[in-house]
Amino acid sequence: MTKHENEQIDERLDVIKHLLDNNEHLKIKEYIEELHPADIVEILLELDDEDQVHFFSILSWEQAGKVLEEVDSDTFIELLEILKREQKILILDQMAHDDMVDLIAELSEEKRKEIISLLDLEDAKKVTELLIYDEDTAGGIMTKEFITVRKDITIYQAIEDLRDKAGDAETIYYVYVVDKNERLVGVLSLRELIVNRPNKIIEDIMHEKVISVNLKTDQEDVAHLVSKYDLLAIPVVDDNNRIMGIITVDDIIDVIQEEATEDIYKFAGSSEAEDIDDDKIFHRIFISVKSRLPWLVITVFGGLLSAKVIGGFQEVLNKNTVLALFMPLLAGMGGNVGTQSSTLTVRGIAVGDIHGKEIFKTLFHEICVGFLVGLCCSIIVAVVSIFFVKGEVILSFVVGISMWANMITAATIGTLVPLIFKKIGVDPAVASAPFITTTIDITGLSIYFTLTTILLTKIVY
Amino acid sequence: MTKHENEQIDERLDVIKHLLDNNEHLKIKEYIEELHPADIVEILLELDDEDQVHFFSILSWEQAGKVLEEVDSDTFIELLEILKREQKILILDQMAHDDMVDLIAELSEEKRKEIISLLDLEDAKKVTELLIYDEDTAGGIMTKEFITVRKDITIYQAIEDLRDKAGDAETIYYVYVVDKNERLVGVLSLRELIVNRPNKIIEDIMHEKVISVNLKTDQEDVAHLVSKYDLLAIPVVDDNNRIMGIITVDDIIDVIQEEATEDIYKFAGSSEAEDIDDDKIFHRIFISVKSRLPWLVITVFGGLLSAKVIGGFQEVLNKNTVLALFMPLLAGMGGNVGTQSSTLTVRGIAVGDIHGKEIFKTLFHEICVGFLVGLCCSIIVAVVSIFFVKGEVILSFVVGISMWANMITAATIGTLVPLIFKKIGVDPAVASAPFITTTIDITGLSIYFTLTTILLTKIVY
Repeated sequence: MTKHENEQIDERLDVIKHLLDNNEHLKIKEYIEELHPADIVEILLELDDEDQVHFFSILSWEQAGKVLEEVDSDTFIELLEILKREQKILILDQMAHDDMVDLIAELSEEKRKEIISLLDLEDAKKVTELLIYDEDTAGGIMTKEFITVRKDITIYQAIEDLRDKAGDAETIYYVYVVDKNERLVGVLSLRELIVNRPNKIIEDIMHEKVISVNLKTDQEDVAHLVSKYDLLAIPVVDDNNRIMGIITVDDIIDVIQEEATEDIYKFAGSSEAEDIDDDKIFHRIFISVKSRLPWLVITVFGGLLSAKVIGGFQEVLNKNTVLALFMPLLAGMGGNVGTQSSTLTVRGIAVGDIHGKEIFKTLFHEICVGFLVGLCCSIIVAVVSIFFVKGEVILSFVVGISMWANMITAATIGTLVPLIFKKIGVDPAVASAPFITTTIDITGLSIYFTLTTILLTKIVY
Repeated sequence: MTKHENEQIDERLDVIKHLLDNNEHLKIKEYIEELHPADIVEILLELDDEDQVHFFSILSWEQAGKVLEEVDSDTFIELLEILKREQKILILDQMAHDDMVDLIAELSEEKRKEIISLLDLEDAKKVTELLIYDEDTAGGIMTKEFITVRKDITIYQAIEDLRDKAGDAETIYYVYVVDKNERLVGVLSLRELIVNRPNKIIEDIMHEKVISVNLKTDQEDVAHLVSKYDLLAIPVVDDNNRIMGIITVDDIIDVIQEEATEDIYKFAGSSEAEDIDDDKIFHRIFISVKSRLPWLVITVFGGLLSAKVIGGFQEVLNKNTVLALFMPLLAGMGGNVGTQSSTLTVRGIAVGDIHGKEIFKTLFHEICVGFLVGLCCSIIVAVVSIFFVKGEVILSFVVGISMWANMITAATIGTLVPLIFKKIGVDPAVASAPFITTTIDITGLSIYFTLTTILLTKIVY
């Protein structure tokens, strides 16, 4: 977000807070009439609970509907509570089905029924239908607001049809063509509808190869298709190829952002996306602890295993306490090289760059990189460590060699682990920083002490 | 990418390779006629150099143009080389301006002029114009293929206009409305053009509040606006509010993916996005080494500083060599907690969740989380380490306490560093794993040895 944008939000917030304090409802209405619904949502989310309710009560039905589409389900219920039954009905009627479904999917059975009872019959039916799909699938993110035309009508008839139906449809940038059994047989962009002459038959100008997804397709795969084929919307079909909904590109952008954030959190060792917008501060802390602690506990036991390994070499360590000085450096360098390799491999798998012959190329690439960066770093360490070991050149040489071996191993482990995870069907992103660094710590320390023991015994003693 | 999709690519690749080997040009033409251009690009990129050229020579002009839009500039030149001058002209004419500009921006002055000389006059003028903008700005990613209408005409006239101009325009999902000085004064969706009656005047139905960006706006900010306001395209204007181009949502998706990948690479300590598709394997290794080494060298010196710190406590260490056992555990836990905090903070800043009052909330949140996860982990360490220190309960208690202090400090540093970087105008993503872990290693070891020295002196001796 730009600095300018942040300042603008803060300025608007100050204005609204001031007007709310003075109960200037008319001025607020006037002020926000100029704003985009997304800006109104932004203001509302920044207000504290009391002001939020106050501000919400001033909005028009349309604005209120847009706001409800964007808040989380707790806020949704809180804001809805303050309204009379008739107001609820009017505002719920403004909301997009897909957003409403996301919200009420998280409510209790009872609350859910209450909300659905406020919808008109057709909306209630559509929302109930959408509720059955898993939220990470195409069915879970699609909307029912789309437009179909029969293949045997003319463009003129189709456009007349659109004039009647367009109010309901979230996007009519594509018009889907169906046969008499409601099966998806073609697609037309609105552009093609306009640039062709009105007397042409839909079937003659439609594209027959429609890129569609099944209700059960994972949302990440849907995002991949929309991005690959540069689509504005993708139709969702059931097993009989009947069109059940569409997913629009704005929802795909949300999926892409969400998946990237999830991947980033996983790299850092946090098992679920933590909701930074969650208003209840202690609830948020609890969620964070819950999602990060498992990774850390694994690392604790990994670290204790390292301690055990070091314990096995206590004799060498007692003779050369100076070896202890380089342990954090060794562990740190291994961890960093390993994290670099694993991060690039995991991201490569996620965006679809690594498959087939690329797998071995990636492994070869990372090992070569580990070899080279390891060589450079080890030379620095070998040279500088001479000052630490009071001129015992052999010792600093041994430290450098161990470091090099450690870094090559780290790069190999960092690349192999996600590739193996992928192969056996585990999410490669689980091979995140904590897991990789712990593994590398243990192997690294073993290499370090084994090599130093061998080399020092052979050379020095 | 789904497993199914990967298999499909491999299968198509096998078919094409087989047909290429047998010079079955007609069969190839037939086979790929069924495919989407994006699929053809995918096949071409998987072929080795020789087959690539062979395959490319079989494509239709339109397919060849689409393929060139997607390859990197080295491949672009290689493929173009094999064509005769007339073929080059025909194929270049098929390409979108924005993609062509991205490609030729990376070429030498001479090559660039050669390509531009092959374009028709109007295209040459547009491409030359686009070349002056920085590639990370709105000007650098926009396309010249958009449609404007004058505000004083009727819908009927506008639609007739579109029929004439639509071939040129990448998207006509929005029609931009200009005054007689070509200044942007409104916008209409194609949908609104269709659902309104043809005799209405554009000015009466257009939206006057157009969300636009300046030529110099950073591409990340453009992506933020498009995603916030759910746009399909955003107009780019000069300082006089004249429309100079548009950016479409498919390019925005690329920007979002690119920025997420860049952020992920930065977390892992790699200064630039490494191009995993680069075919020249040793060139790729060189690029990787170049982008990762600086971070590693910083860590080396950080690690040597740690060694210095430990050296300062060598006396305590000599007395209790058992303290050395827990050093990697301590450094590891600090690093992990710190990385978790820094990653969440950096991502929070990037997606715009952290600003204003959120800054202090985030800091408070992360310190609390560090306190709690630190408490849990320290208890485990204190209890288990009793077995390592042969029943010296005080010693294991001291290790536990130091670990706890270290983890709270790590969470604080992990959160503060990106926030401070943001404040002083440095990219917060630079506060990546290597930087944070090195800082935390040094502070952590200082805390560990200071605390153990004090506590052991007071209690044990």
